[in-house]
Amino acid sequence: MRLARATMIACVVAATPALAQTTPPAPSAAIAEDFKPSSLNQPGQAYPQVNSQGYVRFRVTAPDAKAVRVSLGLGGRGGTVLTKAADGSWTGTSEGPLDEGFHYYHLTVDGGTFNDPGTLNFYGSTRWESGIEIPARDADFYAVKDVPHGRVEQILFASPSTRTHRRAFVYTPPGYDAADDKRYPVLYLQHGWGEDETAWSNQGHANLIMDNLIAARKARPFIIVMTYGMTNDVRPGSPGGLASFDITPFRTVLIDELIPYVDRHYRTQADAPHRAMAGLSMGGFETKLIAPKNLDTFGAIGLLSGGTIAPEDVAAAPGYKDKVRLTFVSYGSRELEGGRTRGGPGRPSTDPRANAEALKRAGLNSVFYVSPDTGHEFLSWRRSLYQMAPLLFRDR
Amino acid sequence: MRLARATMIACVVAATPALAQTTPPAPSAAIAEDFKPSSLNQPGQAYPQVNSQGYVRFRVTAPDAKAVRVSLGLGGRGGTVLTKAADGSWTGTSEGPLDEGFHYYHLTVDGGTFNDPGTLNFYGSTRWESGIEIPARDADFYAVKDVPHGRVEQILFASPSTRTHRRAFVYTPPGYDAADDKRYPVLYLQHGWGEDETAWSNQGHANLIMDNLIAARKARPFIIVMTYGMTNDVRPGSPGGLASFDITPFRTVLIDELIPYVDRHYRTQADAPHRAMAGLSMGGFETKLIAPKNLDTFGAIGLLSGGTIAPEDVAAAPGYKDKVRLTFVSYGSRELEGGRTRGGPGRPSTDPRANAEALKRAGLNSVFYVSPDTGHEFLSWRRSLYQMAPLLFRDR
Repeated sequence: MRLARATMIACVVAATPALAQTTPPAPSAAIAEDFKPSSLNQPGQAYPQVNSQGYVRFRVTAPDAKAVRVSLGLGGRGGTVLTKAADGSWTGTSEGPLDEGFHYYHLTVDGGTFNDPGTLNFYGSTRWESGIEIPARDADFYAVKDVPHGRVEQILFASPSTRTHRRAFVYTPPGYDAADDKRYPVLYLQHGWGEDETAWSNQGHANLIMDNLIAARKARPFIIVMTYGMTNDVRPGSPGGLASFDITPFRTVLIDELIPYVDRHYRTQADAPHRAMAGLSMGGFETKLIAPKNLDTFGAIGLLSGGTIAPEDVAAAPGYKDKVRLTFVSYGSRELEGGRTRGGPGRPSTDPRANAEALKRAGLNSVFYVSPDTGHEFLSWRRSLYQMAPLLFRDR
Repeated sequence: MRLARATMIACVVAATPALAQTTPPAPSAAIAEDFKPSSLNQPGQAYPQVNSQGYVRFRVTAPDAKAVRVSLGLGGRGGTVLTKAADGSWTGTSEGPLDEGFHYYHLTVDGGTFNDPGTLNFYGSTRWESGIEIPARDADFYAVKDVPHGRVEQILFASPSTRTHRRAFVYTPPGYDAADDKRYPVLYLQHGWGEDETAWSNQGHANLIMDNLIAARKARPFIIVMTYGMTNDVRPGSPGGLASFDITPFRTVLIDELIPYVDRHYRTQADAPHRAMAGLSMGGFETKLIAPKNLDTFGAIGLLSGGTIAPEDVAAAPGYKDKVRLTFVSYGSRELEGGRTRGGPGRPSTDPRANAEALKRAGLNSVFYVSPDTGHEFLSWRRSLYQMAPLLFRDR
């Protein structure tokens, strides 16, 4: 199946670090000198650091370099410019506080693109990028706590259509390892453009979010399956790129290969009421392309910063109203500011909140969530999963 | 338990990239221009490349840099020096062919240490380093094949002694997911100094080695548990460093916390005859410190480039001869060249091959293996696991 260019451009939002935002500080604001190493630093690394206001301080050693810049922290001018000290180190502080949550970034050292040796790497923008975490006020919901922990399992499943064995990660909830016959619902959860099947565990903490929800009895224990959505062959905005994106290969892998594998190898409730599909950004877009056309496979749908389900979408999918038990749509608040979600490249052409309300008025279980003070980034999606999970697989 | 400095220095070999070797080429040797991207490159990256002779060609973009060097490929002079082209790229080819297998490396760009943006990163030398793979003639044994695949499962287990939840990876063999009552033996497998619990899956391909052995019916299906050996608080060779290394915290985590967790959450054969411990380099050293003193816990021992079991070690461990069903010791051939394994920092003080033979003469199941044409690097350890696994958990 190939899609008209207009449809693609209107719906896909790329998960790019360029969208990380800073709030311009008041001119007189003092920067608190309480910087601490970021929680994502590599073992023993002192930098980068974050202060209590959300400012970031970078330090990199490159004694003979002419210029070092960080792709984060200074909206208008392409990043934070570091300055050199006598000891050969380069240091700089973001112009303003960064949004809470996770941000991708990289260094530019004498014109070359490198990662910051101080931090861990995360797959985004089709490469392993540096990551930094600005502590969120609500970080507790994805913290490692003294609760029973599920597992994140790497599987390799045969994919005849792509002539290889493909990787997926499977979250199994606490208690799944009990040698009993209990069966579990399954959420198929997709990453965004530029990312891959590692994103929801590494950047997203999907496993910890579920562990904590289950321990608090706020969500029913279910399995989550995360695989590569084959999204990175096209670059959003490149001429002809998204227009030529074809969902068919991924739909084949997902529906004909991965789902049967999971239902064969895990104790699943293998029917549509107990199988959901959701995704962030381009993964939400893929969800919208696949799930409403396969309502005997999926009984719940989630689009996280990844489009909208309008009444006409429901009308175009026979059985949607009866079969879809949850339609969950979410955005980061910054994505909604100034009408940003409507029109223009990367944004839905109709208002997602109005669509969600229209679905609700039509009697559907439609939920719209907005993550406060976040943009097109992972804290929006962690929070969205936290909001969505308790609503999934509930008896109506 | 604290150890005398002499014991530590004599036994520990650090897994450092500095030990990657090149064979000096004949002066007249022509470099074959059949370079191909390394199998470990990030998606879509053309460099680094490897040719059919094992030479490596690096290319990095840094238009304004003054000097770019790679920590690999030129034994005597600290690496491969790259030279700049008109387009701002820096290119260089290793002086000679590299040993087959996996090598860690990094770049030095204008005096700063960075990873090569072309390749994937692997945890070694206490940081995420660039990795490159020189195709091995026997690479088939760890290839992804069309066979049933086991899983690599990330678990978080409670560790009261360290006041946290610690991570381990658990390999479960194909068939483990069958909802039956079958129980499996367990190998506890440790990484080396500078590495962590990700090494045996990422660099070591332990899961693929097992999948292939089990498919060929060469090894009994068993579980492998890999956790962080708490080895990186000390630097080999640093003053007082290794002398102050204390095995107690890790032994507590392993024996009092991890093993009970695994026996509770997995279908294990929870007795010493069906539980083994092995490790590479400093992980082998840890194995020797722990296993012979806990023969009611472990019934097999493997040291991979990580020391030797001498007759006096057996004599010092009551019950060793009756209880230890396999003593497996291995090295890369380059580690044995010129008597390198005897004496000097990082090497056992007695000949490991002679010790292995002495144990055999004394009636023990003692196996000594040498990996051809490899040094203190991961191809030695992949091959060692491939050799050791079929010998584990067999009825005598």
